[in-house]
Amino acid sequence: MSTLQRRTLANAVRALSMDAVQQANSGHPGAPMGMADIAEVLWRDYLQHNPANPHWPNRDRFILSNGHGSMLLYSLLHLSGYPLTTEDLKQFRQLHSKTPGHPEYGYTEGVETTTGPLGQGLANAVGMALAEKTLASQFNQPGFDVVNHFTYAFVGDGCLMEGISHEVCSLAGTQELGKLIVFYDDNGISIDGEIEGWFTDDTPTRFRSYNWQVISNVDGHDAKAIIAAIEEARRDSSRPTLICCKTTIGFGSPNKAGSHDCHGAPLGKDEIQATKHALDWHHGPFEIPEDVSHAWNAFDKGQTLETLWKQLLEGYKAKHPELAAQFLRRIEGSLPADWDEIKKDILAQQSTLTDDVATRKCSQNTLQLLGDKIPELLGGSADLAPSNLTMWNGSEAISPAQPDGNYIHYGVREFGMTAIMNGVALYGGFIPYGGTFLMFMEYARNAVRMSALMNQRVIHIYTHDSIGLGEDGPTHQPIEQITALRVTPNLQTWRPCDQFETTVAWLAALERNEGPSAFILSRQNLPQQKRDSLQQQNVSKGGYILKACKGTPDVILIATGSEVALAMDSATDLEQQGFSVQVVSMPCAERFDQQPKSYRDKVLPTNIRARVAVECGHSDYWYKYVGIDGTVIGINRFGESAPASELMTLFGFTQEKVVETSKRIIQQNAH
Amino acid sequence: MSTLQRRTLANAVRALSMDAVQQANSGHPGAPMGMADIAEVLWRDYLQHNPANPHWPNRDRFILSNGHGSMLLYSLLHLSGYPLTTEDLKQFRQLHSKTPGHPEYGYTEGVETTTGPLGQGLANAVGMALAEKTLASQFNQPGFDVVNHFTYAFVGDGCLMEGISHEVCSLAGTQELGKLIVFYDDNGISIDGEIEGWFTDDTPTRFRSYNWQVISNVDGHDAKAIIAAIEEARRDSSRPTLICCKTTIGFGSPNKAGSHDCHGAPLGKDEIQATKHALDWHHGPFEIPEDVSHAWNAFDKGQTLETLWKQLLEGYKAKHPELAAQFLRRIEGSLPADWDEIKKDILAQQSTLTDDVATRKCSQNTLQLLGDKIPELLGGSADLAPSNLTMWNGSEAISPAQPDGNYIHYGVREFGMTAIMNGVALYGGFIPYGGTFLMFMEYARNAVRMSALMNQRVIHIYTHDSIGLGEDGPTHQPIEQITALRVTPNLQTWRPCDQFETTVAWLAALERNEGPSAFILSRQNLPQQKRDSLQQQNVSKGGYILKACKGTPDVILIATGSEVALAMDSATDLEQQGFSVQVVSMPCAERFDQQPKSYRDKVLPTNIRARVAVECGHSDYWYKYVGIDGTVIGINRFGESAPASELMTLFGFTQEKVVETSKRIIQQNAH
Repeated sequence: MSTLQRRTLANAVRALSMDAVQQANSGHPGAPMGMADIAEVLWRDYLQHNPANPHWPNRDRFILSNGHGSMLLYSLLHLSGYPLTTEDLKQFRQLHSKTPGHPEYGYTEGVETTTGPLGQGLANAVGMALAEKTLASQFNQPGFDVVNHFTYAFVGDGCLMEGISHEVCSLAGTQELGKLIVFYDDNGISIDGEIEGWFTDDTPTRFRSYNWQVISNVDGHDAKAIIAAIEEARRDSSRPTLICCKTTIGFGSPNKAGSHDCHGAPLGKDEIQATKHALDWHHGPFEIPEDVSHAWNAFDKGQTLETLWKQLLEGYKAKHPELAAQFLRRIEGSLPADWDEIKKDILAQQSTLTDDVATRKCSQNTLQLLGDKIPELLGGSADLAPSNLTMWNGSEAISPAQPDGNYIHYGVREFGMTAIMNGVALYGGFIPYGGTFLMFMEYARNAVRMSALMNQRVIHIYTHDSIGLGEDGPTHQPIEQITALRVTPNLQTWRPCDQFETTVAWLAALERNEGPSAFILSRQNLPQQKRDSLQQQNVSKGGYILKACKGTPDVILIATGSEVALAMDSATDLEQQGFSVQVVSMPCAERFDQQPKSYRDKVLPTNIRARVAVECGHSDYWYKYVGIDGTVIGINRFGESAPASELMTLFGFTQEKVVETSKRIIQQNAH
Repeated sequence: MSTLQRRTLANAVRALSMDAVQQANSGHPGAPMGMADIAEVLWRDYLQHNPANPHWPNRDRFILSNGHGSMLLYSLLHLSGYPLTTEDLKQFRQLHSKTPGHPEYGYTEGVETTTGPLGQGLANAVGMALAEKTLASQFNQPGFDVVNHFTYAFVGDGCLMEGISHEVCSLAGTQELGKLIVFYDDNGISIDGEIEGWFTDDTPTRFRSYNWQVISNVDGHDAKAIIAAIEEARRDSSRPTLICCKTTIGFGSPNKAGSHDCHGAPLGKDEIQATKHALDWHHGPFEIPEDVSHAWNAFDKGQTLETLWKQLLEGYKAKHPELAAQFLRRIEGSLPADWDEIKKDILAQQSTLTDDVATRKCSQNTLQLLGDKIPELLGGSADLAPSNLTMWNGSEAISPAQPDGNYIHYGVREFGMTAIMNGVALYGGFIPYGGTFLMFMEYARNAVRMSALMNQRVIHIYTHDSIGLGEDGPTHQPIEQITALRVTPNLQTWRPCDQFETTVAWLAALERNEGPSAFILSRQNLPQQKRDSLQQQNVSKGGYILKACKGTPDVILIATGSEVALAMDSATDLEQQGFSVQVVSMPCAERFDQQPKSYRDKVLPTNIRARVAVECGHSDYWYKYVGIDGTVIGINRFGESAPASELMTLFGFTQEKVVETSKRIIQQNAH
């Protein structure tokens, strides 16, 4: 150290955090003040990053899992030289600022993931560390460690109480993610007060049970102790490390330190003044003295680091040109240069199938064609590989012994899987896909939302999509789940009816670099529909006329997935009875809604109000398309345990019911 | 033991399980065969229950958390003498049988909870053990332990991989639930195969870190070892116990034992024959020899146990009549005899308020009035008590030192809290309520569904219900969450607009003994609406005319919660411009849908198609009420971090927007 003391540098973080929260009159000063000393050591002495290029692929990743302490991260980015000005800090928690209440991916350069929903940042970090290890294994060559860095995460008590911390830390231990280093902010305080009434885990022992290296009892305000811990953490390359840091929440505040009072509210002007006095910090709000600013700035160091890496990459390119090209393409997130041809080939292979096939199997068929061409596909399932059909014949499980595989056995950990996939997608170089039963999407629900909020290309594979799964009964039979997915902003939910629609869904999901896709797939076999080439093209529009009729339709049937064949058969029946029927297949309503009005009006003409939607799921969603004059054949109660065919009859998914309902609606609309 | 060997008795379970799965051609024989020896010891030697009265309040609770092994439970119930016949077993997994694919609460006497969604059965068991301890503390008197029994649970690898197992076992250790005894079926197999590739936890160490007694390395096929473990478990009254049993999945099957092949599919006729031969079981399908049947039957023993308890209860009634009356009332699930008066009193106190109050505070106000009268209320929050306002001034935290409280600090464990509440409700004697932010309902989502599926009176309190929470930003701002709740069968979702509606919601939720209710509450203050007495009565119908108009309305505005005042102000504005406007407040759409058509048509006359719904949430749901000719002012994208008032303007929740939209819709419908 120069003449500047580390504590003074840490106090810069404390001061900025207090000031910004005070200015916003809202926010969480306690955690940034408590973790400032740890952050000072980590960011100034260890973190390999380049503020001039926050996207440098080989940077260390830093995740603030206790995202409510966002001012810690903003202070660090600002002080390190990222494009985040004092003015930005003054805009903390204001509309369209770079400093929203919680760190939001895409809003602020240097924010690696959106955090706030507790435990998920830690899960994202596990995903990033797994991605780093896998990418390194796939690409590094002797003398060319083009991927080689650490992933650091800060977590609080809340993160460790959440169940997802169990799921992902257990898997991180099994996968021996030695370059994952997690700092636990053990401050003894959560929102309800002192945690001893509700959180008494022996956390070091718990993490040792997961095959982690645990460094316990570190004084989180003693730089030397923190340095020693980090050194020890980095030496163990086969176990992730948890560094348990005893800290004081709101460190420095004479009257609020160590108590819940400083957790989630501004300290108040007087207390800030008293705190700054106590910390020997004699500067105005948002003021950082030149020497402190200089000591924090990582701009030049970062440029040097990236330059050295670029030199390494040049050598790698020269010696391993094909690998290098693939590496750069994948890091960039582009599909292969011959993607259009790949697509054309795959689509051409779809039209010939005539067998009845479950759409979960259709998905696997497509994956089998894609697997070799798209090496960035990183598959997995939450212990349902044989049911979700997420493995293709080139799937290789990732393990400590074989870290260069392309498939993760996530175990029975739906939430962990999904949040890990988000981390993998954010990391880059991979397109993660993962499967579970549609019902158990609910265990992972908030991570599905996070993939949408962060615009990540994650592919969620949900099989066993309705009462059609049969005997497993109501606990396993989705009713309301498809609706929950469809109303999630920026998620595209596909419920394809056959092989062709399933393939289109896969291709669209791969091309969709701005958000996730979910596939809702049947357990049971479904017939293949016939399409002309225009219909084939229209599948990707999300909704299209699968069966046109002469003249004005008397009724429009709208269906998805397993109910499309039922709608088609019912249409044939109705036409034999003299009615004109148009059948609309709507595999992805969200995409249909994005089509121009002219297209939508062609598929669903405004003046035709006799409309019947048929879907083996909750009916409410469909009134958007059938209105008050139409109706929905859906399910608004829980399912039953019985063979699937009996359930379809019990719940009214029969040709008889569709025909009868259609005739009623035609009649009602004729008046 | 008599001449009958324990193994022979256990084989009865194995045989029935194999036979039933074979007959259904679907199901999971592996776990029942693996756990049969443990079950034989527990059920025959320890379990205190009465097959003649499965509802005997002081019975031990038994939970099969690995619910896919349902034939284990059905076999045990059948053999013990519950009303579950051989014919019922032959109907395994058939429509409307008593033996659905997974144990379903309410379908089968003796099934304490619905299991299948992994980890939740364990959480329910924690809830039951907590309820037992709390109820015992509240009611037992010297010499009168009217509540005094154990809670036993069977769990598999899947349950222990799930994050919820961390949440609830951590809390169970903190709460020192010494009468909870969990058997871990450590068979090394899950659906993807041998678990060593994805589940390598040192589970005993993990549970010791939670303050559990762990008895490890028990041979799950050695009755003596199992007996010794149970004895040890029962001796420790201050720690829950995990008994780790090494078992062989599909025990007895010569070709499939110990492998994934017997996990989730019938063994096949030949293998069943070979297995029965290997087990020395020489009886036809579903045949149980008389001596085996007799040795299992617990009917007489159970009657004796309950009779003894009833004698104890008589003494308790004599000595502690008031306590006894309350105890019996609560066990029965009835509200106090003077409930109608309590209700009337509370409602009478509501009409006077004129201040602007957040509905989360309104909820607390109601709770304050209810708390003393309804001692069965068992509150809690997932570490957000000061935000959810779930404590009233009689709230006393439950702890090992004070087990007779009425409030649980659940910690940051939303899923665990919710599944524990389900266990508490199933147990009886309590009406559990628990709070979190509406967004983090998603962490608990499947347990919310389970409370609905099991018809349990659980009250879910969700505050911070929209962008109206302001600065915390998109990770915390619900958009699609209310829809997800509304489309959940058998859940009633309330989004009240003021004190009166909030109180009605609370009263309705308490009276609703056939299912859960969810309250969607604002962080921000809202004004009080005026209502005449008819309107006051109509609130409980879920939707009602809050503002009528003279003649036929030009437009109907439908709103909920924080948007009701906006709709009312907009109506005033529109009427000043010469339009007739009817305003419908719709605090609980699910209840509105249950009203007679005549009532619904009065509130929303079929011929009035100019309808505008206003809700700070996803719009799709509302097309059900506004149809194709109306419109919705909602939010179909993610939120932003900013002060609430700015967000309301940004997202169009302004009088100007409502008025302008209404006029457009009036005009469109005039053509």
